[in-house]
Amino acid sequence: MILTFVGTAGSGKTTLTAEFGRYLVENGKKVAYVNLDTGVKRIPYKADIDVREHITVEELMKEGYGPNGAIVESYDRLMAHVSYYLSRILELEKENDYVLIDTPGQMETFLFHEFGVKLMENMPYPLVIYLFDPTILQKPHDYCFVKFFTLMIDLRLGTTTIPGLNKVDLLENLTEIKKYLEDVEYLSTRLNLETSMQSLLAYKLCKILSEVSPPVRVLYLSAKRRDGFEDLETVAYEHYCTCGDLT
Amino acid sequence: MILTFVGTAGSGKTTLTAEFGRYLVENGKKVAYVNLDTGVKRIPYKADIDVREHITVEELMKEGYGPNGAIVESYDRLMAHVSYYLSRILELEKENDYVLIDTPGQMETFLFHEFGVKLMENMPYPLVIYLFDPTILQKPHDYCFVKFFTLMIDLRLGTTTIPGLNKVDLLENLTEIKKYLEDVEYLSTRLNLETSMQSLLAYKLCKILSEVSPPVRVLYLSAKRRDGFEDLETVAYEHYCTCGDLT
Repeated sequence: MILTFVGTAGSGKTTLTAEFGRYLVENGKKVAYVNLDTGVKRIPYKADIDVREHITVEELMKEGYGPNGAIVESYDRLMAHVSYYLSRILELEKENDYVLIDTPGQMETFLFHEFGVKLMENMPYPLVIYLFDPTILQKPHDYCFVKFFTLMIDLRLGTTTIPGLNKVDLLENLTEIKKYLEDVEYLSTRLNLETSMQSLLAYKLCKILSEVSPPVRVLYLSAKRRDGFEDLETVAYEHYCTCGDLT
Repeated sequence: MILTFVGTAGSGKTTLTAEFGRYLVENGKKVAYVNLDTGVKRIPYKADIDVREHITVEELMKEGYGPNGAIVESYDRLMAHVSYYLSRILELEKENDYVLIDTPGQMETFLFHEFGVKLMENMPYPLVIYLFDPTILQKPHDYCFVKFFTLMIDLRLGTTTIPGLNKVDLLENLTEIKKYLEDVEYLSTRLNLETSMQSLLAYKLCKILSEVSPPVRVLYLSAKRRDGFEDLETVAYEHYCTCGDLT
């Protein structure tokens, strides 16, 4: 089973990859790790595949690139190795129970660069966990954004994407947040009380969500407390072993 | 009039900001420039406001941050100055015909960080030009992605967002691309011929697009040939002077 963690810089992809891997190993599973981030300095797991063997952002910056240019350039250069990485990942899958893929620090490098698209589109039934940080949930329309952004990842990468609220150990109002994320009626009512253009757009989008996508489970994760790790295992099992019914 | 250019690293925000500004000046307009990218090394315009006066990615990397961490940290530190930048931008608007805002190299820093959200949400009737690169348009569902991603920017930042296909001088099949972007019926028919999960999702999303958003004009831009510059002026004029009817 291959699990790919996608999320913005700072959403906790790398820490979660490491800690979820340790948890699986402690439970008798065989786990392999893949690092696709050319910009990361240190990773808290032993990568079986690491794109930094080919190129790093730091090296490119020494060549004179600025940080943004170096990030893009590193994946331009990795394009020549996509098939190589794909076949190595598929080999790892055969030899292990789990392959955990940690993606580029900047999420857009994965979503908008051909490297990410090519890699994911050629994987069999790819499963993505979209990690988002509680700090982006400030107003009711932000919950609608998360739901649609999850669909955007499916649309872009041809994946099945499960949203995962990360760092829940930092939250005091998780019950309220769960209500917003899981109860569309509740969210719609709240959106209806707001007067901003964003709320109106979110209200319309929420209303049509069920027409384009079946209800998707949300994961509530914490690397610190190992919250949601069992659910994450269940999601992977159900995706790969019971044909993708994640409702 | 304030125009904010948003797009992934490499989409051509900075070059377009500079060249569109020069074009406006040549046509007798008074133009001010704002650089919000802490990671850019050189900019081809004279910035009236430049966030690098407070912090740069390079400085933070010297402190020991990796490139991804440094980008996020730079905007964390800029949070203390959001109100200051907002008021300076609004002052510039009074003194100029146009204020052109060049946003962070990594688009997600603007969309997912509170810095971008706070700045845009507090601007009066903010107008965003979402620049996308022709290379992301590989398959029919990619056109649907662009349309919905435009809405995602509206939803996240509370803006009116106009998609702008940039670097059209590199394209030989612009007529075909325009058909996909402008003729929803044509796009739907094409999506219907595909068999991937992505195409099915895109088909459903396209069908409901008109329920959530009025048809939005697409700009076809080239800094090199100044393509679409008149249209861009018209869009800004219509947005700020005729109450946002951009159909």
